[in-house]
Amino acid sequence: MSRYAPVPFPDVRLEGKFWHERLETVLDRTVPSQHKKLGEYGILDSLKLPNPQPPLRFPRHSNGFTVQVFWDSDVGKWIEAASYALAHRRDADIEAKIEAAVDDLEKAQAPDGYLNCWYLGHEPENRWTNLRDNHEMYNAGHLLEGAIAYFQVTGRRRFLDVMERYLDHIYSTFGTEPGKKRGYDGHEEIELALMKLYYLTGEKKHLDFATYMINERGRPNPHYFDIEREAREGGDSKQRYVFGNYEYSQSHKPVREQEKVVGHAVRAMYLYTAMADLAAELNDPALKRACEVLWDDVMETKMYVTAGLGPSAHNEGFTHDFDLPNQTAYAETCASVALIFWAQRMLHLDLDGKYADILELAMFNGALSGLSRDGEHYFYANPLESDGTPTRWDWHTCPCCTMNVSRLVASVGGYFVSTSDDGVAFHLYGGIGSTVEIGGQKVALKEVSDYPWSGDIRISVDPEAPAVFDVKLRIPGWCHGATVSVNGQKVEAKAVNGYVTINRTWAKGDTIELDLPMPAERLYSHPGVIMNAGRVALKRGPLVYCVEEVDNPGGRVQRLKIKRDAALEVKTEAGLFDGVVTLKAPATAIDEGEWSGLYRTKPPAEREANLTAIPYYLWANRGQGSMVVWIPEVV
Amino acid sequence: MSRYAPVPFPDVRLEGKFWHERLETVLDRTVPSQHKKLGEYGILDSLKLPNPQPPLRFPRHSNGFTVQVFWDSDVGKWIEAASYALAHRRDADIEAKIEAAVDDLEKAQAPDGYLNCWYLGHEPENRWTNLRDNHEMYNAGHLLEGAIAYFQVTGRRRFLDVMERYLDHIYSTFGTEPGKKRGYDGHEEIELALMKLYYLTGEKKHLDFATYMINERGRPNPHYFDIEREAREGGDSKQRYVFGNYEYSQSHKPVREQEKVVGHAVRAMYLYTAMADLAAELNDPALKRACEVLWDDVMETKMYVTAGLGPSAHNEGFTHDFDLPNQTAYAETCASVALIFWAQRMLHLDLDGKYADILELAMFNGALSGLSRDGEHYFYANPLESDGTPTRWDWHTCPCCTMNVSRLVASVGGYFVSTSDDGVAFHLYGGIGSTVEIGGQKVALKEVSDYPWSGDIRISVDPEAPAVFDVKLRIPGWCHGATVSVNGQKVEAKAVNGYVTINRTWAKGDTIELDLPMPAERLYSHPGVIMNAGRVALKRGPLVYCVEEVDNPGGRVQRLKIKRDAALEVKTEAGLFDGVVTLKAPATAIDEGEWSGLYRTKPPAEREANLTAIPYYLWANRGQGSMVVWIPEVV
Repeated sequence: MSRYAPVPFPDVRLEGKFWHERLETVLDRTVPSQHKKLGEYGILDSLKLPNPQPPLRFPRHSNGFTVQVFWDSDVGKWIEAASYALAHRRDADIEAKIEAAVDDLEKAQAPDGYLNCWYLGHEPENRWTNLRDNHEMYNAGHLLEGAIAYFQVTGRRRFLDVMERYLDHIYSTFGTEPGKKRGYDGHEEIELALMKLYYLTGEKKHLDFATYMINERGRPNPHYFDIEREAREGGDSKQRYVFGNYEYSQSHKPVREQEKVVGHAVRAMYLYTAMADLAAELNDPALKRACEVLWDDVMETKMYVTAGLGPSAHNEGFTHDFDLPNQTAYAETCASVALIFWAQRMLHLDLDGKYADILELAMFNGALSGLSRDGEHYFYANPLESDGTPTRWDWHTCPCCTMNVSRLVASVGGYFVSTSDDGVAFHLYGGIGSTVEIGGQKVALKEVSDYPWSGDIRISVDPEAPAVFDVKLRIPGWCHGATVSVNGQKVEAKAVNGYVTINRTWAKGDTIELDLPMPAERLYSHPGVIMNAGRVALKRGPLVYCVEEVDNPGGRVQRLKIKRDAALEVKTEAGLFDGVVTLKAPATAIDEGEWSGLYRTKPPAEREANLTAIPYYLWANRGQGSMVVWIPEVV
Repeated sequence: MSRYAPVPFPDVRLEGKFWHERLETVLDRTVPSQHKKLGEYGILDSLKLPNPQPPLRFPRHSNGFTVQVFWDSDVGKWIEAASYALAHRRDADIEAKIEAAVDDLEKAQAPDGYLNCWYLGHEPENRWTNLRDNHEMYNAGHLLEGAIAYFQVTGRRRFLDVMERYLDHIYSTFGTEPGKKRGYDGHEEIELALMKLYYLTGEKKHLDFATYMINERGRPNPHYFDIEREAREGGDSKQRYVFGNYEYSQSHKPVREQEKVVGHAVRAMYLYTAMADLAAELNDPALKRACEVLWDDVMETKMYVTAGLGPSAHNEGFTHDFDLPNQTAYAETCASVALIFWAQRMLHLDLDGKYADILELAMFNGALSGLSRDGEHYFYANPLESDGTPTRWDWHTCPCCTMNVSRLVASVGGYFVSTSDDGVAFHLYGGIGSTVEIGGQKVALKEVSDYPWSGDIRISVDPEAPAVFDVKLRIPGWCHGATVSVNGQKVEAKAVNGYVTINRTWAKGDTIELDLPMPAERLYSHPGVIMNAGRVALKRGPLVYCVEEVDNPGGRVQRLKIKRDAALEVKTEAGLFDGVVTLKAPATAIDEGEWSGLYRTKPPAEREANLTAIPYYLWANRGQGSMVVWIPEVV
């Protein structure tokens, strides 16, 4: 099998209802409103150097840290999202706004190429003295991703030129050669951006620096962050590091030796993404093996059923196995978005559908929940249960998640289809059109479905001339009894590594019918997840469901218990959110009104009731109220 | 009804098995080992002034704070506990250790009476500049409680003289008079200590200063902590206060206007204790009413079933109504101990048994769980559920809880009986002897029982000469069907405000038999406590039970579900912890061994099983393992 590579999103038209709506919302509302917020919060002004900097908007934490050190990354990520938006619809206003930011960045850039607006504006003498905490490389990575996206969409090189000058400065500062610092980033990100640049330009220096960063990470005796700290704080300094250990940044040991997923979840996911990129590019079996071991660790012990990652607010990350509290779940939107990135890289290593299953799970649940229906409100943390307290925000002190979800949606077409020299693979469904090249021949593809609401999928395959190639159809891991027909003739639908492969001579007008049965299902947790003892989650297709108070009025939804053996009714509700599928089930309900006092010996009176569940990603769009994913169950 | 007052603990002999064992452990092991720890951790050395101070053992937090600022309080609390121990058994070694500490404190005291070893040793120029954070008055309060206890037990005045000089300094520094600072403490404590000193000495100045502190607290426009901060940090300083608001220290509004329990739980309980003291002493209905409103708020929305208080580690305190997470419960030992103090004051306002119910609940559960069976290990936080991770500690960075539980146990006799001019009231049972004075006449009392394991109680009442008075017997709120006999004759056992009152002519040899039926019970939570949906707790008498892995081997105890209708077997187990009552019940169990992966659609296979529960206060004495109080239930 020759290697599969994703068809880039600009070549994939989103024609299905589900993603069309999300994309239009992001284009119409999210991207413009995010620029407005960047202005209101002073982030755009912070690029205007050498103007005197205004007082800090977010005062330094008591440990000296301020979130303003990573404002550059927000600009980079917005430019990336906005550029993706331009690929769908050119927009002079958006382009002018990007150009204005690039103007500022170009002016701010130091003569030697250095470009970090925080340091240039506030403490130029301290550049490159605290990679552990202060995000210089992380910012560079996000600016670089923005520059690449803007170049790819518009062909304009100026921002990319700025960033390449900055990279040359970075390459001359860091490395194993004598006279260079052997540093690497405290918040991983630039590695995956460098790989994008390498794929774009083919210039080996970018691959080499990404390789250096991955290889250097976690090298002990001495640890780079210790060297840096000594230089910064004096030899006998004992200033305590707030996170106490280097697991926080996955730099506690060399990456090839890491077997447990630890620390800050977003850092981890960005790192693993780059590791998987490099494993493929360098054909490095040790790196690939490390990725696989880490993947298994997440999947077997550390992932929420929504593909949320990182239970703890303290380190914004991972704790111990099976520690998956629901109400206090951090499950940062960025972490689920970054899991999608990692899963996509893992998927393309061996085209194993188990990675696409998680990519899809994260996309429809843990990531998409981060963006409101109106496109202008967000979740940073994505809890799986609520007593009604938290709600969506219109911005965040640390707005990283807001633009992670907009750049994801604006480029979501890039996750649907991959091609190789001898075939095409469908990973996701939902209504797309694309013309791809397979073995030098153009093939028009059209996939029509109402996925994720329905598993009835029709694909037309139209090569310019008849040709033999593989069409690979992903059969999701959650699906049983999938059937496939070609031109009305059933073909064997046995999935190998998650894909049914149809190899034949394809000709214009050929049509595939794929049926993915999508009954509502109950999910149970490993008993190690003690929070979910006696509870059950509902899922249909790729969508995890939740029970929200607005659909189940009468008190907190935790009053409801679902019966194990009761049928789950799958109901299309045209009037709800422009049409969604809800799940309904008989339940029992406790009457809160009947209570006084906290505890009593009399069992709660339970009455027959009905329960309505909606897709998790849609919760908290209709005011405040309680919500639960893991529903108490009556056996 | 004339007012009832507690019979002091030195006049109450603990003869019953339960408290005798706890007391002997505290005398033999806890008090001596705590002194050793105070030495090992440098706390005793910190009193030795003006010696140069060693480097900080606990470096300042990034916000400038170090726990060493309240080391004086640990010394004070240890002296208090050790003095109570001396009341049971004189011990030359312990006395010498107390005297050595008093030597140091006397030497350390400044000529003007000021006595705070942290400030004197580290930053004498900054005394009284940060009442909000730095615990000067809190330390003074605990030292004062130690001095009072030591004086009461030994008659030695030296420490008390030192503290009275310190108080004179404080009284000359703070107050409403011109030239004084209108300050009060960030961590309440000294108010209740001053009330003890007032009760001891009758000197009105102590009552007056306690009254000043209570009245001044939370006075706005400007708030004292703001005045102080401006003086400390400069007029335009905007250094952020780590807790963000004055709810943390219950100084957000004047105390008589407070209706919701907020902030740091121990601070709150110490404050409310003093408020209740003052309400009684000043006959202040507004203050009494505030205490009652706050009491109801705790009871109706904020107390764990174990009488643990304060769910959150962030503020060591309260959050919103019904927020009572089990695994992450902070429920600091100190808070339950302090709840006992408050409950005792409330009880003596109107002799309403509902307060004694909570006093007893806290004592047998949330407070006692803080001390290990061996008397040398502790819980600071008292979670109601565990996956096996946490375990007891042999000391704590902030050792406040360790000596709170030792001083409680060493003085526990003081909670059993109260007397008035015309009666005696029994609040707790468990085997005590005492000779009290009622209306000028000595009455020997002896209560014999195996409480809390059994509710069969026999009380002998032996006045010197026949006399008419009330004997009041508390019928616990959890008890139904109590019966009372006097000299073998049944009397009506109708409790009013939680007490059965027997008024008769008592004569030598009179005997009361009190039977408190004590079946095992199930408890259910208000549906607002979403964490306990579908779960049940077990309780018998005053003891809350838990299911611990050591008694239920085969995986995490959360694998077990208890059946709602199954009988609970009450079993005396002579070989367990020198004899306890366990509860056993049929259950179903999930087999964890049968699992791979985190989630699956197949329901967990359940098999019949048995469940054994032990009293909550005894958990974590037999190695690490999972534990649950709120058990998943099968209806």
